Amino acid sequence: MEEYISGLEFPEQPSGLYAPIKYAIEAGGKRLRPSLAVMAYRVFADDADKVMPAAAALELFHNFTLLHDDIMDNADVRRGRASIHSKWGANTAILSGDAMMIWAYRLLEGVPNLGKVLHEFNKLAIEVCEGQQMDMDFEDRGDVSLDEYMEMIRLKTAVLIAGAAKIGAIVAGASEKDCEAVYEYGVQLGLAFQLQDDYLDTYGTPEVLGKNIGGDIAEAKKTFLTITAMNEAGEATRRAILNTFSDHGHSLAQRVARMKTIYNSLDVPAITLGAVERHLSAAAKALDSIGKPAEGLREMIETIRDRNK
Amino acid sequence: MEEYISGLEFPEQPSGLYAPIKYAIEAGGKRLRPSLAVMAYRVFADDADKVMPAAAALELFHNFTLLHDDIMDNADVRRGRASIHSKWGANTAILSGDAMMIWAYRLLEGVPNLGKVLHEFNKLAIEVCEGQQMDMDFEDRGDVSLDEYMEMIRLKTAVLIAGAAKIGAIVAGASEKDCEAVYEYGVQLGLAFQLQDDYLDTYGTPEVLGKNIGGDIAEAKKTFLTITAMNEAGEATRRAILNTFSDHGHSLAQRVARMKTIYNSLDVPAITLGAVERHLSAAAKALDSIGKPAEGLREMIETIRDRNK
Repeated sequence: MEEYISGLEFPEQPSGLYAPIKYAIEAGGKRLRPSLAVMAYRVFADDADKVMPAAAALELFHNFTLLHDDIMDNADVRRGRASIHSKWGANTAILSGDAMMIWAYRLLEGVPNLGKVLHEFNKLAIEVCEGQQMDMDFEDRGDVSLDEYMEMIRLKTAVLIAGAAKIGAIVAGASEKDCEAVYEYGVQLGLAFQLQDDYLDTYGTPEVLGKNIGGDIAEAKKTFLTITAMNEAGEATRRAILNTFSDHGHSLAQRVARMKTIYNSLDVPAITLGAVERHLSAAAKALDSIGKPAEGLREMIETIRDRNK
Repeated sequence: MEEYISGLEFPEQPSGLYAPIKYAIEAGGKRLRPSLAVMAYRVFADDADKVMPAAAALELFHNFTLLHDDIMDNADVRRGRASIHSKWGANTAILSGDAMMIWAYRLLEGVPNLGKVLHEFNKLAIEVCEGQQMDMDFEDRGDVSLDEYMEMIRLKTAVLIAGAAKIGAIVAGASEKDCEAVYEYGVQLGLAFQLQDDYLDTYGTPEVLGKNIGGDIAEAKKTFLTITAMNEAGEATRRAILNTFSDHGHSLAQRVARMKTIYNSLDVPAITLGAVERHLSAAAKALDSIGKPAEGLREMIETIRDRNK
């Protein structure tokens, strides 16, 4: 699968359009979405060559979202390297992102069950945009509930993971019922994945994570941790949380340490890891209705459970 | 067709995502691309209801390109109203544009001959991006040849018009040979259309055009007029052209008047209108190989020939 993705060929010209796309793909990443498509395919069929183009399309689409998100978030670094918009400018990042999304659709052209695959791909694509919009809307709001947050990450993160798994199943010709089970598995896995991201941004080890921690605190981002903390806290602690967010008199390391103390006192780490575990269990349960072992998909649950980066 | 497009329904929420899309569609426009899809369809089949979703997809895709182009060009006005990026900001314009493109692909889901339609749609979509990149690359170059310019407008403008007509024919089940003839017709029509745009930007009547003239001169844009003038001019006149572009001591109206005098002295208007006519004739000729009257497509040639806005 990695071979297929890194072997994708793009034109040389115009280089302003294609060099950033190649740069984005070379950067690698977890390849979680294409892996899930391939593993879901293998539950129902052999000859995984048939699912490769769709798997690669999902990875390209994911990279397109990162590329445009980095412009919107003004993020300078991605996977330890300069982000495309910081390296080439916003215009290039907009247009290369557009081309990357179109290229994802090109990869779908020859897939088996094209009508169904296109429908699922479009659905996840538009939902990812809706999730990104909600995420941006949350920046200006102080009253985001945990339910709203979960709905946002379902759209922004989980439906792409779920859609990837489902598309693998569709390409393999799985029944509608099995496709739905695989989708539900993916949603739960995706929610767990995002809550882990939230957790690791504060509690991860920078050397393992490959990036600095505390980014969410620096940007006063609403996350599962923040919202849970605000829900659990009394009046005084709530003020302390807000003060820590807006306190630019201390270093980020000092503010992260202060926030951890608050989170710990409110049991936020245990609540978060408990929620991760519940979603991983729900993912496993979703697979039970499939009359197949689905070993690859089950192993993925363990991989996600153990991840610290 | 207009009814179908203005009747497209989008979700209410998140409004930050969908309000700009509705705003863009309400703005109207010539609806040239969906009209061509419908007219090409009607050459080969009745019951034009079947081509409406694909026609609307082409119009949405066109509007998506305008939306992202306006960010890249920093254009504040579109169709006499504030552009989306000037009204809502660049982030909203990026994301709404993305959603608009995805929505175009959603409209394709149920079309007849989906595999062929998707292939054609993807092809024109990626070529439009390549054309936009070439256009941006030209900004930094002083040596753009007429051939390079024609290739840029083929990609940026003509292939979307040609693809629209061809997709109409594909949906109608036309033969490959007829689809190619319709495509060639569209390319020639699209080239004529863009050369007219270049002409009208200097020689149009603002009241008829609905926008100010001289925008290309203000931005020192490479157009058919500029490149032809530079090719036809001697050393001294070439300097006069470059001076007029960079002369910010005079008003735009004065600079446009000066440039017109130069263009007229070099026969640029006649050369441009001659090129328009050659491409329109080639469009008509392309239709001759189809064993059908193709009246709608032929009438469109006359409509384009007569346009002054």
